[in-house]
Amino acid sequence: MSSFAPASSKKAKKRAAADGVDGEFFPGIEKIQYKPDAGPEDVLCFKHYNASEVVYGKSMEDWLRFSVCFWHTFRGTGADPFGFPTLHRPWEDGSDSMENAKRRLKAAFEFFTKLGVNYWTFHDRDIAPEGNDLAETNKNLDEVVDLAVKLQEETGMKLLWGTCNLFANPRYMNGAATNPDAHIVAHAAAQVKKGLEVTKRLGGRNFVFWGGREGYHTILNTDVLAELSHMANFFKMAVAHKKKIGFTGQFLLEPKPKEPTKHQYDYDAMTVIGFLKHFGLDKDFKLNIEPNHTTLAGHGYEHDVVMASAFGMLGSIDSNTGSPDLGWDTDQFPMDVKNCTMVMKTVLEMGGLTPGGLNFDCKVRRESTDLEDMFISHVGAMDAFARGLKNAAKLRQEGVLTRLVKERYLSFSSGIGAKIAKGAATMEECEEYILQKGEPKAASGKQEKYEAILNHYV
Amino acid sequence: MSSFAPASSKKAKKRAAADGVDGEFFPGIEKIQYKPDAGPEDVLCFKHYNASEVVYGKSMEDWLRFSVCFWHTFRGTGADPFGFPTLHRPWEDGSDSMENAKRRLKAAFEFFTKLGVNYWTFHDRDIAPEGNDLAETNKNLDEVVDLAVKLQEETGMKLLWGTCNLFANPRYMNGAATNPDAHIVAHAAAQVKKGLEVTKRLGGRNFVFWGGREGYHTILNTDVLAELSHMANFFKMAVAHKKKIGFTGQFLLEPKPKEPTKHQYDYDAMTVIGFLKHFGLDKDFKLNIEPNHTTLAGHGYEHDVVMASAFGMLGSIDSNTGSPDLGWDTDQFPMDVKNCTMVMKTVLEMGGLTPGGLNFDCKVRRESTDLEDMFISHVGAMDAFARGLKNAAKLRQEGVLTRLVKERYLSFSSGIGAKIAKGAATMEECEEYILQKGEPKAASGKQEKYEAILNHYV
Amino acid sequence: MSSFAPASSKKAKKRAAADGVDGEFFPGIEKIQYKPDAGPEDVLCFKHYNASEVVYGKSMEDWLRFSVCFWHTFRGTGADPFGFPTLHRPWEDGSDSMENAKRRLKAAFEFFTKLGVNYWTFHDRDIAPEGNDLAETNKNLDEVVDLAVKLQEETGMKLLWGTCNLFANPRYMNGAATNPDAHIVAHAAAQVKKGLEVTKRLGGRNFVFWGGREGYHTILNTDVLAELSHMANFFKMAVAHKKKIGFTGQFLLEPKPKEPTKHQYDYDAMTVIGFLKHFGLDKDFKLNIEPNHTTLAGHGYEHDVVMASAFGMLGSIDSNTGSPDLGWDTDQFPMDVKNCTMVMKTVLEMGGLTPGGLNFDCKVRRESTDLEDMFISHVGAMDAFARGLKNAAKLRQEGVLTRLVKERYLSFSSGIGAKIAKGAATMEECEEYILQKGEPKAASGKQEKYEAILNHYV
Amino acid sequence: MSSFAPASSKKAKKRAAADGVDGEFFPGIEKIQYKPDAGPEDVLCFKHYNASEVVYGKSMEDWLRFSVCFWHTFRGTGADPFGFPTLHRPWEDGSDSMENAKRRLKAAFEFFTKLGVNYWTFHDRDIAPEGNDLAETNKNLDEVVDLAVKLQEETGMKLLWGTCNLFANPRYMNGAATNPDAHIVAHAAAQVKKGLEVTKRLGGRNFVFWGGREGYHTILNTDVLAELSHMANFFKMAVAHKKKIGFTGQFLLEPKPKEPTKHQYDYDAMTVIGFLKHFGLDKDFKLNIEPNHTTLAGHGYEHDVVMASAFGMLGSIDSNTGSPDLGWDTDQFPMDVKNCTMVMKTVLEMGGLTPGGLNFDCKVRRESTDLEDMFISHVGAMDAFARGLKNAAKLRQEGVLTRLVKERYLSFSSGIGAKIAKGAATMEECEEYILQKGEPKAASGKQEKYEAILNHYV
Repeated sequence: MSSFAPASSKKAKKRAAADGVDGEFFPGIEKIQYKPDAGPEDVLCFKHYNASEVVYGKSMEDWLRFSVCFWHTFRGTGADPFGFPTLHRPWEDGSDSMENAKRRLKAAFEFFTKLGVNYWTFHDRDIAPEGNDLAETNKNLDEVVDLAVKLQEETGMKLLWGTCNLFANPRYMNGAATNPDAHIVAHAAAQVKKGLEVTKRLGGRNFVFWGGREGYHTILNTDVLAELSHMANFFKMAVAHKKKIGFTGQFLLEPKPKEPTKHQYDYDAMTVIGFLKHFGLDKDFKLNIEPNHTTLAGHGYEHDVVMASAFGMLGSIDSNTGSPDLGWDTDQFPMDVKNCTMVMKTVLEMGGLTPGGLNFDCKVRRESTDLEDMFISHVGAMDAFARGLKNAAKLRQEGVLTRLVKERYLSFSSGIGAKIAKGAATMEECEEYILQKGEPKAASGKQEKYEAILNHYV
Repeated sequence: MSSFAPASSKKAKKRAAADGVDGEFFPGIEKIQYKPDAGPEDVLCFKHYNASEVVYGKSMEDWLRFSVCFWHTFRGTGADPFGFPTLHRPWEDGSDSMENAKRRLKAAFEFFTKLGVNYWTFHDRDIAPEGNDLAETNKNLDEVVDLAVKLQEETGMKLLWGTCNLFANPRYMNGAATNPDAHIVAHAAAQVKKGLEVTKRLGGRNFVFWGGREGYHTILNTDVLAELSHMANFFKMAVAHKKKIGFTGQFLLEPKPKEPTKHQYDYDAMTVIGFLKHFGLDKDFKLNIEPNHTTLAGHGYEHDVVMASAFGMLGSIDSNTGSPDLGWDTDQFPMDVKNCTMVMKTVLEMGGLTPGGLNFDCKVRRESTDLEDMFISHVGAMDAFARGLKNAAKLRQEGVLTRLVKERYLSFSSGIGAKIAKGAATMEECEEYILQKGEPKAASGKQEKYEAILNHYV
Repeated sequence: MSSFAPASSKKAKKRAAADGVDGEFFPGIEKIQYKPDAGPEDVLCFKHYNASEVVYGKSMEDWLRFSVCFWHTFRGTGADPFGFPTLHRPWEDGSDSMENAKRRLKAAFEFFTKLGVNYWTFHDRDIAPEGNDLAETNKNLDEVVDLAVKLQEETGMKLLWGTCNLFANPRYMNGAATNPDAHIVAHAAAQVKKGLEVTKRLGGRNFVFWGGREGYHTILNTDVLAELSHMANFFKMAVAHKKKIGFTGQFLLEPKPKEPTKHQYDYDAMTVIGFLKHFGLDKDFKLNIEPNHTTLAGHGYEHDVVMASAFGMLGSIDSNTGSPDLGWDTDQFPMDVKNCTMVMKTVLEMGGLTPGGLNFDCKVRRESTDLEDMFISHVGAMDAFARGLKNAAKLRQEGVLTRLVKERYLSFSSGIGAKIAKGAATMEECEEYILQKGEPKAASGKQEKYEAILNHYV
Repeated sequence: MSSFAPASSKKAKKRAAADGVDGEFFPGIEKIQYKPDAGPEDVLCFKHYNASEVVYGKSMEDWLRFSVCFWHTFRGTGADPFGFPTLHRPWEDGSDSMENAKRRLKAAFEFFTKLGVNYWTFHDRDIAPEGNDLAETNKNLDEVVDLAVKLQEETGMKLLWGTCNLFANPRYMNGAATNPDAHIVAHAAAQVKKGLEVTKRLGGRNFVFWGGREGYHTILNTDVLAELSHMANFFKMAVAHKKKIGFTGQFLLEPKPKEPTKHQYDYDAMTVIGFLKHFGLDKDFKLNIEPNHTTLAGHGYEHDVVMASAFGMLGSIDSNTGSPDLGWDTDQFPMDVKNCTMVMKTVLEMGGLTPGGLNFDCKVRRESTDLEDMFISHVGAMDAFARGLKNAAKLRQEGVLTRLVKERYLSFSSGIGAKIAKGAATMEECEEYILQKGEPKAASGKQEKYEAILNHYV
């Protein structure tokens, strides 16, 4: 998760205000249909995603649990470090007004509905403007949440997760939970308290913590142990408050290796799992894995999904992608079917992601300025994941890879192998075994065979 | 730690055999002296490292505890994936004979002594050739260890750490402790059993585990959880055997992110700390940090040293460097004084590395073919670290950075900050605090000031 | 192109000698057949590559012109910087003898034939051992080339290209054409002279220069301009000799950014094109692009293929892949159908690669130790490229992307655009144009639409 | 060069307007003095930079020609992709008004003067707001340039270079000179026309082109050859207009590999040199090298400075740095003395940079929010480069490295080496030479010796 974009330019304000939109926000666009035989240029329909179609025992929508994120899709302006906003939406008047916030939320629910997803996600500061102090800010938030509750009821949309933006406001420039100023840590805690409460009210299935600025820019000015310890205490406060208010959603922590800080403490899945274990938080948290963050950490696309799942810690996925040749978070729509297949293979193996899902933490390119590009991008990604699901299901159904892997580790099911696997062997026994049995035999790893078999399904 | 180089070529064999060296191995080179006023081209003397000179309360040799590694410096041949050996040493006959092994060891001890270090390190397979079976291999090892014990006594050299090479022999191509074949895991255990025993005999201060091929090449053929669990059980066997034989050295685990495998399980310091916590091994292990591995993992040079130290887990350092623009382990001699200063700053802050040290896990470039290059490279690196030590000592003595950092976190010593630091605050309290106190004040991070102050000392 | 692996170990020698193979080298394996309906585990047949099938006006074998490289496939031993050889081939006795060289060549031709490719490639030093001096080395080479001529005639195999290994011998450690010692440059020239002559004799369609060690390790000891100028003069000698002996093959230069040197002068396609232009060599050379080198240079997989083709400089392709998360050359078999599609899209757009081809500069993983893995890997890659070809052909036939791109640049076909495109416009005219016409309109780049359309074909 | 930051937030506007500053903008700060004995915390004085001190035959200010950039230092707001502005300057009212622009310029000249540099740099859009059309925009620019001329006269400040911002305005989102819409290319040309004219009027020593968005995001929608050809024609128009108006400053092209686009056409020094050669522009342009871009392209810090200089194409330097572990442009202040030494070594070897200079294309960290941080950062960097200059001068004066390198290439000054160097040798001659002289001798590259010698001076 990421990027909280700055307000739009003066010109945009004028334009939006003039339009004064409030009826239908995407007038030319109908609900996206499933048309398996549509032509290549027909990019406003699904060719693979068929929500109710049953695949490997569950409907596609149950496996995939797609979610649209509010920040990129409704707060993204196309601004980047080198340029001004490019994305001018007709419902935006560019102001921080409550009216604009509400109109934007209505546009979003029309988008969700027309796209055909069941879940959405948001940061507190995405949906409602900050006021002059915390009290006013919370009041603003409540008012927008009232509307969100109503829109959820009307449309049947559900909240996959809520989260707090603890990185965009200048007060958090040196961190939130890890800020060297306790006053700011307290502010972050107060903000999360409210964030939990509104997420509960919206029936959020999960609550995500992304440590936007929890890390360091220079180790010279930083006491890393103090900061990590404060972060752990911060999470413990959140766990306590969650229990107090009876919020039953799953807590999720999202790894990212760097950006905006030079080093983010939640570097990758194993780092976060280690942190949670160290501070006794591993029962209360799972992970929200974003593959673009995984690749920035120097791993393969599916690595953190697989690792988190292996440790029983995979909670949800921010289904996006980066370009492997770029060193920053591009939050692109995932369009690579092989990558989607690998992710869905893991999801299938663990029986599904519930209560998590696949959240599109993706933004249209800043050059994709047409309103329809919002749909085209989501549709393309949903189709890519639908293909990934079907590929993974077939792979699993036929069971070829599963069987090969099982056979590869067969020696651990009996004899010295079983003792090692149980932790019951000693080095003396091992030495004795080798003195008797001699040199082991080489066994080909057969990587290319595995790759070729995967290609059979992709 | 790394690289076990292949045997030398036919031509080298002939040449070495002809020379038949066995008296003085480095005839033109005297014991390296401290000459602070030597000229720039006088690269065979120390200009900064003065072993007995007291710095910040201890002699330089006590702070730095330099160690020479046997593998690169006495088994390196200059072969690389694109070319044949270039380094032809007069004492080598290119054979796997015991005679050659012993002559090589004598050459090494002459080198250690002339260089003026107090410690050395080795892998089991560096110093003695493998036999036809484990029994013969162990016998060979014992025989060379006999000689090593004698040479240690004669020279006063000490063993910083021993380790087992569990990656060069083809049997370990799919891993050692994480091999899918239990027979091979047992073989690795038998090897480590012996490795512990000879390290004990040589008075090793530590014992290192570098998971050379513990990782995966393709996640398609791999059961990561089983492999990690086997690795944990393997370490538990080692801990049990250590206790059984009464070896009191410190166990060290060395992180590396990738190479030779696509993903090494011991990715970086925090990953390894997490692994140790998860499997209940954190009391029995510390870390051996190699900065070249740290930078390959995408961190700054000193990052893992600082992180391991903050968690009380820094055991020893493989003091080398890579080129930041290269994506593989180059194991270069550390020559950057600023980097050395940052490392020694951490070492000073924790009161020294004992029983660990600074091991030169470095190799002369394959183009550095002169015998004197072996000395030039070590001398240059020792001088760089001596400067780093003196810089860090002055920095610490004057206390400027220490004080600035302390002031930065002052708010945690009282009020709401102290409660947060103790883990005693609640989110309600934090909210109440903010409702009363309002918005926190911005405090400049002042990165450039810290950097400029550091430059004052470098 | 890359990696010249060291000789195999003592044990391997014994084993190979004992086997004494010389009849059929791959006894269990029949000629690979096209079986489109084979199951996932049937990895020893083509499911997509059907040599004679006509696609977009030419047979698949004519479009793809697959070639097997001799070095990885018949000289690779599985040794890596951390371990000894793992690949023990029954025809190898581990010696540098001529007999071994010839037996190996026979095994290779059996492999080529059973696999069903039409082309092969080699380095001079792959196929024949070096002698005690250049005269003997050349004599050895001639003798093996005699056999190769005979085997080519018997099997119908053709030589896609020859090349000289100017990097494995220690004499080239500081470079060949860019060596600071003129004696070594002269040696490299003498070697290339012979290499050109034997490539001509074998009817080589091309001749490749890969600057294995043309670059620097430290800029401190290097005169880069002198070295580049020597390299240019070296190529001019080669062009002159080519003309003199009447060799009509295409000269190809192969970019690589780094490894083994810290900086290779032939960094990437545009760097090499610039070098060739600067020294007036661009009429005499084209490029041999290796995607694994392209990604190491920080580009997308297909980038250098596209750039070289755009400049009319694409000569041939070393069709392999790396792992995007690894920083060294892994020379893996290309198994990603989307990448293959992108490459074949460019090849189709330029009407084919002739006289170049798709050379598999790939090596089986060192853990893929079964003899059948040699086939499985090539078959998997050939199928991936066959799918790429079919996808690209369909894409081109339907013409959707081509048309969209053409429309995007339409404004350059008339008015001010046409003047700019011709280089006939002035800044005054442009200013005048804007003062009259005002602000241009935004046009969406529609990246996601293009990506979704591509997915329609992959 | 880079980053054009978005306008500041509503709150900032209010704050700045309230302050209504217009007298002294940095009231607490005196002109920075040279105090070589100042303590570590005294970071508001020079300890090494002494403008008039003569080093190696020229004053330090003549060698270094420091320049402050207007964009980062006076338009930077601290906004990043994840957060709002943090840097609130008292002279800013947050508006796009001419009044604000002029007040900001006055603040800048006070800063330049107090800092003690002689040069500044700017983009057209940094100093004056865009109007409703080109005519109004140009009028705004003229009016601010009037003031700049006056301030230059009053203070003695000179313009190192001007440039045009062709990337921040949404119209350029798909490129400027390489835009697929000719209307936009024309707009860019009109803008550069004016940019050249005002740079001439301000006596600019150079004019820089940084291809902010000249590149591609996806190769799928891009005709790379057309775009490069349009870019060349664009530069030819600029050369023609330069001659027409009699502007005598040097044209400079600035390489960058990626960001904001996935691939920037001006990837690195050699790519740009190749482009200039290919299109016949190499007589009219030199390069402006930014080391942070060099490292993003995968090279060592000083690589592009050295390469551009070797080809006689080094025009000027954007003296900044990145973090080697980060994959985006951080534009940090250069604080590493060894890096500064390497750059100044090249500058000294070419006799100075005139008419170029060292431009600080650097921004204070967004957390460095104090006004004094603007000074601290520049002072720290100027001191680092002053040390670099003095180190390089001593290195050059003593001539050790120069002599060693010269000796290394000695063989090219006579015999076969001289013939090769002149391009007069043939492959037959080389073969003959080797047949007579036999195998060359190995010569150690002695990298560690060179590194140790360099450390003698750093």
